[in-house]
Amino acid sequence: MAVINENFLRLQRSYLFVEIANRVKEFEASHPDKKIIRMGIGDVTLPLPPVCVEAMKRAAEEMANPETFRGYGPEQGYEFLREKIATWDFQKRGIEISPEEIFVSDGAKCDTGNFQELFSPTSRVAIPDPVYPVYLDTNVMAGRAGKIRDGRFDNIIYLDCTRENQFSPPLPPEEVDMVYLCFPNNPTGATLSREALKRWVEWAKDKRAIILFDAAYEAFIRSKEVPHSIFEIEGAKEVAVEFRSFSKNAGFTGVRCAYTVVPKECMGYTRDGKPISLRDLWHRRQATKFNGVSYIVQRGAEAIYSEEGRRQVRDLTDYYLTNARIIKDAMTSLGYECVGGENSPYIWIYGGDDSWQFFDQLLNRCAVVCTPGVGFGRCGEGYIRLSAFNSRENVQEAMERIKRHLR
Amino acid sequence: MAVINENFLRLQRSYLFVEIANRVKEFEASHPDKKIIRMGIGDVTLPLPPVCVEAMKRAAEEMANPETFRGYGPEQGYEFLREKIATWDFQKRGIEISPEEIFVSDGAKCDTGNFQELFSPTSRVAIPDPVYPVYLDTNVMAGRAGKIRDGRFDNIIYLDCTRENQFSPPLPPEEVDMVYLCFPNNPTGATLSREALKRWVEWAKDKRAIILFDAAYEAFIRSKEVPHSIFEIEGAKEVAVEFRSFSKNAGFTGVRCAYTVVPKECMGYTRDGKPISLRDLWHRRQATKFNGVSYIVQRGAEAIYSEEGRRQVRDLTDYYLTNARIIKDAMTSLGYECVGGENSPYIWIYGGDDSWQFFDQLLNRCAVVCTPGVGFGRCGEGYIRLSAFNSRENVQEAMERIKRHLR
Repeated sequence: MAVINENFLRLQRSYLFVEIANRVKEFEASHPDKKIIRMGIGDVTLPLPPVCVEAMKRAAEEMANPETFRGYGPEQGYEFLREKIATWDFQKRGIEISPEEIFVSDGAKCDTGNFQELFSPTSRVAIPDPVYPVYLDTNVMAGRAGKIRDGRFDNIIYLDCTRENQFSPPLPPEEVDMVYLCFPNNPTGATLSREALKRWVEWAKDKRAIILFDAAYEAFIRSKEVPHSIFEIEGAKEVAVEFRSFSKNAGFTGVRCAYTVVPKECMGYTRDGKPISLRDLWHRRQATKFNGVSYIVQRGAEAIYSEEGRRQVRDLTDYYLTNARIIKDAMTSLGYECVGGENSPYIWIYGGDDSWQFFDQLLNRCAVVCTPGVGFGRCGEGYIRLSAFNSRENVQEAMERIKRHLR
Repeated sequence: MAVINENFLRLQRSYLFVEIANRVKEFEASHPDKKIIRMGIGDVTLPLPPVCVEAMKRAAEEMANPETFRGYGPEQGYEFLREKIATWDFQKRGIEISPEEIFVSDGAKCDTGNFQELFSPTSRVAIPDPVYPVYLDTNVMAGRAGKIRDGRFDNIIYLDCTRENQFSPPLPPEEVDMVYLCFPNNPTGATLSREALKRWVEWAKDKRAIILFDAAYEAFIRSKEVPHSIFEIEGAKEVAVEFRSFSKNAGFTGVRCAYTVVPKECMGYTRDGKPISLRDLWHRRQATKFNGVSYIVQRGAEAIYSEEGRRQVRDLTDYYLTNARIIKDAMTSLGYECVGGENSPYIWIYGGDDSWQFFDQLLNRCAVVCTPGVGFGRCGEGYIRLSAFNSRENVQEAMERIKRHLR
């Protein structure tokens, strides 16, 4: 009898987006004339940089010609792309990362979801709260979470991120083998200082733990003091893996391309303490279960690193950051406590005791849809997340409505 | 301490392609004037169907325009593609499969590798020998294989495919929960008759086992009696999942698109025997760990189903099938026993006791590279695989050389 992986049955159904959709539908039905502005979405809205489009059209054309046609590519990604990544995202920032340490993939969601496969099913996992749900769900599927009690899993170490610690996760009080950190953060928009990152790296070295560092929103960093990569911290290459994405910088959410950096120095351990290269394990995993990213897409991603491409990506992220500033200024002017919105497209806003109550206020009084913070974890209760991924016009109108009706 | 998944250490390094490369390199060094013809590769050589290229260029153009730009798509694949698949690959053949049962992905390798995640780590797995290595390796990683002894894993049930059973895997003599079947087969090129497939479906229903049916080479079937899908067999929807790919029909090995069919009736079981929909589990798995295939690529795949696209794909597969016939005829005329090559791009050739000896003969006498059958498993010993994925000119020249030097 084909017995299923019963850990799947422990997954919590996320009613968040269903519940949002239901409440919006109800509002629409009773207010058919009101134009609803959706500020909850984490998806980009501006079109692709023109250089990427042209590069992909050229690559598609190459596939029509027997002389330039390409079949299977390297599972790790084409060297032309890995070299550009190593140069522009790392070496030019003074970080020594080589193309051999870069693995091109079809999404940071896949990579952050799959990387846990390299570790023992009994590893102890720490996850911040609030959090992007993929880290938790994939560990539930792998059997690392245990039983759920009052909304939290027995075997997961939750790192509460609150206004008291400025949404900077505390070091785990107990033994932990793997920790997920995401900065600039989704959903809070908070960043981590160099000093805080240093503490994490020291902790990981001390515990021989691994930091799974999700830097999908790196392109929004503008402050000089915020590190762009965990590998800016000395010693991080021994204990950290970094996930990057082209989704939010170049608008590749529908094109699908991302990459993961696994430094050669980064080690996991056998039960008896023998170090094993995680880079080699990940290479084996990818070579076995993955067949590389579309050649056409990789040519599109490569174009991001051309001079024009870098300028076009900067324009895109600047546009969203201006949106973010408009949102933050408006909410702050109304007396709301806000985090993020400066080196991040997300603004995390404290609205009182109840996220859903705040959600309903915004919907019913302003016809603006947000994401209730409690949907990202217990510590999100009372907050909402507003996203800067929208048109300038929508953002301005939404803020005017909020200023008018919530004052 | 971050302890690794020690099952990874049980993976056998495949020396096959390294060893082939070494022997070819040595030959090249001592015969710098000889033109080597590589007949071992499983990758396509002809360019993409023009309709696919045009569709991808149009889709890339859409991404440049704010009105037609697309961000995140459905994890399961766009409906425009799933509907075409359901109609053309199933409904027009009299098989009732709906778009909700189809999951578009970036490769059959990923899907055949990932699907085992839905099952208990203690499931008993049966795998044919010879075999495509992904089925075994992904189950080794998941801890289902046990220890290796004389080249075989303790907990895997090997189904020997030999000339005695016409390379049709025998039903497992012991309890088995999951079985991998690939037809038309890689590497043997053998097909399975409707009667043999019926026996498998009956066996699976009796045991409440699951058949993981890899039909990546379906497009090469020309004989009327060979089933194109396992779902042509009554009752198969309750016990089978089918993997399909655009790699070998439309040459998408570098473009990356495939799909998996998980019928609503298909059930796994909890330990106490409660049926659980595998379609729903796979949906949850994909929604959590995958973010859909590039919009541009999905438009390329959709074009395969247009009238022109279907004709262009037919032309591509016909070309390779003519190559296959030329190879088979030549080898048969020399007295070699051949399988495949009729509904398959692979020809499986018996050359004596030792695959590597046959490999060396072909290389040293004819400057032709093949794949030694023993690289696909113990039962491949003595065989070689020749691939029809090549130009007509190369195939003809290779066969002339073989006829001249091996007669």
